[in-house]
Amino acid sequence: MIRFDSDYMEGAHPEVLQALIDTNLCQTVGYGADPYTERACELIRRECDAPQARVQLLVGGTQTNATVIDGLLARHQGVLAAECGHINVHEAGAIEASGHKVLALPHKHGKVAAEDVERYITEFYADETYPHMVAPGMLYISHPTEYGTIYSLAELEALSQVCHSHDIPLYIDGARMGYGLAAEGADVTLRDVARLADVFYIGGTKVGALMGEAVVVTNPKLLSNLFPLVKLHGALLAKGRLLGVQFEALLRDGLYYRLGVHAVELALRIREAFRAKGYEVVVDSPTNQQFFRLPNEVFDRLSQRVSMELWGPRGESHSTVRVVTSWATTPEAVDELIGLL
Amino acid sequence: MIRFDSDYMEGAHPEVLQALIDTNLCQTVGYGADPYTERACELIRRECDAPQARVQLLVGGTQTNATVIDGLLARHQGVLAAECGHINVHEAGAIEASGHKVLALPHKHGKVAAEDVERYITEFYADETYPHMVAPGMLYISHPTEYGTIYSLAELEALSQVCHSHDIPLYIDGARMGYGLAAEGADVTLRDVARLADVFYIGGTKVGALMGEAVVVTNPKLLSNLFPLVKLHGALLAKGRLLGVQFEALLRDGLYYRLGVHAVELALRIREAFRAKGYEVVVDSPTNQQFFRLPNEVFDRLSQRVSMELWGPRGESHSTVRVVTSWATTPEAVDELIGLL
Amino acid sequence: MIRFDSDYMEGAHPEVLQALIDTNLCQTVGYGADPYTERACELIRRECDAPQARVQLLVGGTQTNATVIDGLLARHQGVLAAECGHINVHEAGAIEASGHKVLALPHKHGKVAAEDVERYITEFYADETYPHMVAPGMLYISHPTEYGTIYSLAELEALSQVCHSHDIPLYIDGARMGYGLAAEGADVTLRDVARLADVFYIGGTKVGALMGEAVVVTNPKLLSNLFPLVKLHGALLAKGRLLGVQFEALLRDGLYYRLGVHAVELALRIREAFRAKGYEVVVDSPTNQQFFRLPNEVFDRLSQRVSMELWGPRGESHSTVRVVTSWATTPEAVDELIGLL
Amino acid sequence: MIRFDSDYMEGAHPEVLQALIDTNLCQTVGYGADPYTERACELIRRECDAPQARVQLLVGGTQTNATVIDGLLARHQGVLAAECGHINVHEAGAIEASGHKVLALPHKHGKVAAEDVERYITEFYADETYPHMVAPGMLYISHPTEYGTIYSLAELEALSQVCHSHDIPLYIDGARMGYGLAAEGADVTLRDVARLADVFYIGGTKVGALMGEAVVVTNPKLLSNLFPLVKLHGALLAKGRLLGVQFEALLRDGLYYRLGVHAVELALRIREAFRAKGYEVVVDSPTNQQFFRLPNEVFDRLSQRVSMELWGPRGESHSTVRVVTSWATTPEAVDELIGLL
Repeated sequence: MIRFDSDYMEGAHPEVLQALIDTNLCQTVGYGADPYTERACELIRRECDAPQARVQLLVGGTQTNATVIDGLLARHQGVLAAECGHINVHEAGAIEASGHKVLALPHKHGKVAAEDVERYITEFYADETYPHMVAPGMLYISHPTEYGTIYSLAELEALSQVCHSHDIPLYIDGARMGYGLAAEGADVTLRDVARLADVFYIGGTKVGALMGEAVVVTNPKLLSNLFPLVKLHGALLAKGRLLGVQFEALLRDGLYYRLGVHAVELALRIREAFRAKGYEVVVDSPTNQQFFRLPNEVFDRLSQRVSMELWGPRGESHSTVRVVTSWATTPEAVDELIGLL
Repeated sequence: MIRFDSDYMEGAHPEVLQALIDTNLCQTVGYGADPYTERACELIRRECDAPQARVQLLVGGTQTNATVIDGLLARHQGVLAAECGHINVHEAGAIEASGHKVLALPHKHGKVAAEDVERYITEFYADETYPHMVAPGMLYISHPTEYGTIYSLAELEALSQVCHSHDIPLYIDGARMGYGLAAEGADVTLRDVARLADVFYIGGTKVGALMGEAVVVTNPKLLSNLFPLVKLHGALLAKGRLLGVQFEALLRDGLYYRLGVHAVELALRIREAFRAKGYEVVVDSPTNQQFFRLPNEVFDRLSQRVSMELWGPRGESHSTVRVVTSWATTPEAVDELIGLL
Repeated sequence: MIRFDSDYMEGAHPEVLQALIDTNLCQTVGYGADPYTERACELIRRECDAPQARVQLLVGGTQTNATVIDGLLARHQGVLAAECGHINVHEAGAIEASGHKVLALPHKHGKVAAEDVERYITEFYADETYPHMVAPGMLYISHPTEYGTIYSLAELEALSQVCHSHDIPLYIDGARMGYGLAAEGADVTLRDVARLADVFYIGGTKVGALMGEAVVVTNPKLLSNLFPLVKLHGALLAKGRLLGVQFEALLRDGLYYRLGVHAVELALRIREAFRAKGYEVVVDSPTNQQFFRLPNEVFDRLSQRVSMELWGPRGESHSTVRVVTSWATTPEAVDELIGLL
Repeated sequence: MIRFDSDYMEGAHPEVLQALIDTNLCQTVGYGADPYTERACELIRRECDAPQARVQLLVGGTQTNATVIDGLLARHQGVLAAECGHINVHEAGAIEASGHKVLALPHKHGKVAAEDVERYITEFYADETYPHMVAPGMLYISHPTEYGTIYSLAELEALSQVCHSHDIPLYIDGARMGYGLAAEGADVTLRDVARLADVFYIGGTKVGALMGEAVVVTNPKLLSNLFPLVKLHGALLAKGRLLGVQFEALLRDGLYYRLGVHAVELALRIREAFRAKGYEVVVDSPTNQQFFRLPNEVFDRLSQRVSMELWGPRGESHSTVRVVTSWATTPEAVDELIGLL
């Protein structure tokens, strides 16, 4: 069985694992006050060209989103997000569990448009009853999105502009940031993200680490209480240096970017192969997640050898599948998949 | 510098790390639905002689406590705990952040007495205004406690009895369970814990793992919604198998118990050496945490070579220090410390 | 200026006020443990033909919804409600502030269809990722709805049936219950509501009382902790008897029902007059809220003498208005309005 | 039976009730945007000599405390309060239900000392582990306290000073403010309260109103989001003008102060009578709550004619009782009580 289910099916990239092995018996204090974490944070500030940024390493995406959003919103505010956004669908109500409503926006393959944000906020304050309604207090987007799509630099600038014109922060969920930076046609760099977002995170779990997400707070007015918030959310790792060691390994010589390129190249090869065979490419995704509409008999035949995720319910004659590559995907596995088409 | 600051200063025990290395590129589905986790849970049920138990592996202690307590309490209930209990002091309000009050009990070196629990509950319901007060909905204890002390079997049975006579669950925080099981004079086994508690956890982070705590729900009426609760608390690890692999390594041939014995033996050697030198042993701890009262000049002299934690504020002439051993402490480090006394 | 803005523009019906005056200096204990409250609750049980029901009097609608929903849901569950439902739009996030997501359903003029509830629940559990999503834990509907519409008995039975077939409670927001019971063509009685809902409330604030909502828990398995929940939500009135006195006055000889009939008759007269003048009746409402689409010049002309609520934004040529009658509306005011058309 | 159980046993003072009667059928918009509320708020600002203050009228004390404290604290902060404080004991966990810990301070008959606040904060930040602990984010005191005691001007100034030196707000629960202002030996005026507190409330429920508490925010930097917070806490009264009408009646010609004087004079007469008979006065209270230690046979004899609250459990030979007067207590009832001694 060759597997394209998700981008978190293996452990860590061998270089990352080696760094953990090399430092395993070193002694450090806990909770991220160790030199590995310090160096990782410094590397991140440098890569982001954001010397003023505070960086906090956390374990996983849901806790990162819950902690950051809880910290950015005032008690009476909610978070704007695409209706399909991870925080609105697949985090078991973690945002609401912290007391905040997710305010759903329309989306196009996972992407939110600046005009829709503008319209939401304008209409909100035009409604005389707005003090009885949940105020939009920030914008959450993911880059890449849950559909593998990415924002262009112009789109991201427009979103940043609309947020700041209404004095709300822009937060970017970068669980798959590495694959977004390496995307086909991408014109957004990590420095652009750092410049345009108020807070974002660089995902490690899906891009080469055992686990780990690096929150970058570029707006120095925000989240001054991030450390106790992290603790309060149960998101503080005792052996914090495990995250520092991994992000240092990922970032000190560009491994993080190379892993993105690797996964995207293989994903695009897969896309071309499906397209060449005449299968419908459902989403125009330039990253490591690809979505195809297949006749059910093709899906069933492939499923005997290939593990993919059914995307939505099985249809009567055709079904949509998600095929995901990662830093760990081998060219051989891709060849094998293509050979089976 | 030899370090006795805490029991989470290194990575994982080499056998545990090796298991992670060996499985690093294996592919599994996420979120704990993998065969390693399944085997680890089965091992835990066997070690606990609790075939009915549900086991859930989480990353860290604060998130474990917050998730379990949130799941055990009804909305209007609070959790009884020693005033010095970790959930009442050092978890940044994680319990209150989930909406629940910690109801503080008196303690003796971290231990709660069954009589005090009984008195609290009896007096609570004797107060006519009790519907205006936070109802005691469960009991939290730690074993070993924050002071390194342990409950005897008789004490644990009394606590279990008082809880069940009032129909509230007993939850045991076992962050250092391995050191408690191996404690000098311990008459409580893991099976006793499983038999007497309704829910407890077996700590991995401080006893040989990179990270990981195994929640064991022995009372089948409780926590049927544990999985979504874990997700909602941001405590679900994407690569859940990392926890399964580690607990399997710790438990398949008794490594977990041996690590406990190792750390406790070294701690007791240290205790004897301090006592022999005439220093006051502040807490009669039979586990890996030891507490000594030292003249400040001794503390200062030792501090040039030994890292220990000051326990409370520095006194005028004497101060109390905590010395902690772990699975990773070497006999050589202990010899060196003793030689410096 | 004659006012049709809302049904909470005056104080209490004179008979209700008189009851408050008559009892003003009587001394009773607080928090609802007084004989007036006891009698009011008994009257409500009798009117509902629900001797087993527990009744709790609260002050206002938002706190009632927040308290009841918080008590009915498990921590990981959300509440199904029409997208336009009061709890989803106009309660400032009170449900989310208690930690729960509102799961929006499609609606037709405020009404939810049993098929849509069935579909939501079925599709939810058909999605393999459902443990990562917020589980539907109850259904909230309002009767009458925010659009003045009412459920037929058949519709209410279907909703009750679908809820109970999935083992979730049905909760009915009856802020305007009196106007629903008196609605044109209504075939739902208070006893039907009590039989089909698990919990509901009888609104006093909008139907003759200064303030007050009577929560009726007909399913004895639910909300056993309602009293401390009410206190915890800050919803317990010190002088609870104020609510008891008012509900007793409303219910002891049918005043509540008569007030409903009064308001609905006047509302239907208004509807007929607008229709006769050729104005579009936007919602087919049989209760005290009526919605008309008017040419802007008509709206502007009327607004010089009549206060009504603009429903949604002002249109280019036409706008929709809401006209509301209540127990306090006088036939003279209605005549005057009609004369102005 | 003559009753001295509490100060919320009757309805409203006749002048307050008359104001409600007079305005009963006036039509106003809801939610406090009416002219009565506007005038009441203006009166309050004038009485407080605080033209910059924002005033918000709420229904009851628990909801007021929960709303204000929730608004004043950052997510990771807790509220300092006397261990016996109402928010720590008798509000069913309403503060924790909003996510915040109550940080208990020692007290003397309900009063907190500035030195204890200073010590708590200093020791907190001296503890290196403080980022893992709940940060003190505000101080809550009540004036008068739960024991009927009051702060002197010097004490209040010291508390205000210590709070502001640590940049945390001082919030005063004035549920019985009227009785505190009229207390024997009181040197604190309403203007002093307004000058020294950042936020406080003037209690109406216990001092002449049916219900109602007036929150005064004197520090203009705080609680800018108070209105939606009130709504979110379910504390917004639909017919808000009911509160405005009552506070206007209480404040327009000094009724509020006269009611305080009335109740305190009667309470002091009672105190003198008990003292003259040789019974122990347990708390040196200068306000409307008095506490006496009585032989059980005296208590039992009195209880046949007088209703008082047992304060704490019944003792073997003696018990402590609370005797409460209010605006509604008659001199005749006091005479009767004294005659029975």
